Amino acid sequence: MQNYKIVIAYDGSRYKGWQSQKNVDATIQGKLNHVFSTLENRCVEVQGAGRTDAGVHATGQVANVKLDKRWTPEEIMEYANHYLPEDIGIMEIEKAPAKFHARLSAIRKTYCYRIFNSSAPNVFERKWMCKIAEPLDLEAMRQGAVILEGTHDFSAFCFRASKKKSAVRTIERIEVKRKGREVDIIITGGGFLHHMVRIIAGTLVEVGLGKRQFQEMEELLKRGVRDQAGVTMPAQGLVLLSVEYQQGQQQGE
Amino acid sequence: MQNYKIVIAYDGSRYKGWQSQKNVDATIQGKLNHVFSTLENRCVEVQGAGRTDAGVHATGQVANVKLDKRWTPEEIMEYANHYLPEDIGIMEIEKAPAKFHARLSAIRKTYCYRIFNSSAPNVFERKWMCKIAEPLDLEAMRQGAVILEGTHDFSAFCFRASKKKSAVRTIERIEVKRKGREVDIIITGGGFLHHMVRIIAGTLVEVGLGKRQFQEMEELLKRGVRDQAGVTMPAQGLVLLSVEYQQGQQQGE
Repeated sequence: MQNYKIVIAYDGSRYKGWQSQKNVDATIQGKLNHVFSTLENRCVEVQGAGRTDAGVHATGQVANVKLDKRWTPEEIMEYANHYLPEDIGIMEIEKAPAKFHARLSAIRKTYCYRIFNSSAPNVFERKWMCKIAEPLDLEAMRQGAVILEGTHDFSAFCFRASKKKSAVRTIERIEVKRKGREVDIIITGGGFLHHMVRIIAGTLVEVGLGKRQFQEMEELLKRGVRDQAGVTMPAQGLVLLSVEYQQGQQQGE
Repeated sequence: MQNYKIVIAYDGSRYKGWQSQKNVDATIQGKLNHVFSTLENRCVEVQGAGRTDAGVHATGQVANVKLDKRWTPEEIMEYANHYLPEDIGIMEIEKAPAKFHARLSAIRKTYCYRIFNSSAPNVFERKWMCKIAEPLDLEAMRQGAVILEGTHDFSAFCFRASKKKSAVRTIERIEVKRKGREVDIIITGGGFLHHMVRIIAGTLVEVGLGKRQFQEMEELLKRGVRDQAGVTMPAQGLVLLSVEYQQGQQQGE
């Protein structure tokens, strides 16, 4: 048995998210499970680092998969990319230690929320961005973002927060930057609650549009009431950029 | 009668090129003519700067159109972008002098040939790039490119060069650059022959793959034989980036 770490890119537009469902063709994990199961002629399941929602994309999702036969990474990559649909691709593959688990071993994830901030049409990338025609005040958004950085209870930024489980998470950094007509909100943290990135993005967008003061972030964190935070931004603008691991945790024998 | 300068972006994948044909839905110009004709309720024709081939894209195609009613640029932009398909968009519009002609007044065009230079799959941009898995030697490509810069007879780099018309053109600059897995060949010049950019790209790619010496460019220019130059690269990797005009030529009253 050999464990492998794989880096996966996908256009999530056509899928009901990462996590496998009854209809194997509906999810990214389902498609990957199917290809690896065919490779080994038995039931194989890949473990993903982040369970991205329906319509969310990834350029650097990470998964691990345990295979019986001692395939070289090149053999797996060629086989899998040949049989996967064009909107899912394995970008990297390497041997990993048996104890490496893509989700449990992950120490940090980075998501990007992509906004097309113009009244002009978005001819090329409309499937992977959310359009906001009105100008955004990036300086205000950055001031709001700074308040969210650090370790807080993010109940206000969570879809159906559980009363039993802790909503305390750590955001290491939120970057808000413009390149041409695009505005990106890039969020790095140890772990995220359900819809957390999209609700943070929605709240910062409302700050950028002048609908809220950036100072409100403090109150939102303190009160922890979901309805007081901003809208959940559409899934199509969200992309999982990367997942990081401790040095050594992922190096295979 | 008011003349307008418009900047247009399009994903050329679905179209038989810029230039209008009998089937109005098959070309970019056809789609634009239709929308402007509907706006004015008479037959209106837009004039494009570059007649891009089937499958070629643009982020900065320029056209001009003469309209009877004194629409504001904002009115036209809103109307046209509402009725154009999602893969064609008007990015800018401004009033232009009556004598402004998008093609005849143009002094310079810039095209980019986009290559996905990796054996990994190109999940997001596969429709707008050409894939070359083998590594490219960019230094060699740059040395070949420098030889092509300047004023030369480009018969060797033209599809069916006419014996009557001159094939002398001036290339102001060819840039070859890598960003991540992408290699771009960016060519700026006063005018281009049929397929010229794609044949230059194909020849430079052969240099990059070590199939030719960069010094051969000199011989190719001198001999002027099409069959001795490289392949015509596929249309899907080509994009018209911008068209430039003399100051004042395009400023409208």
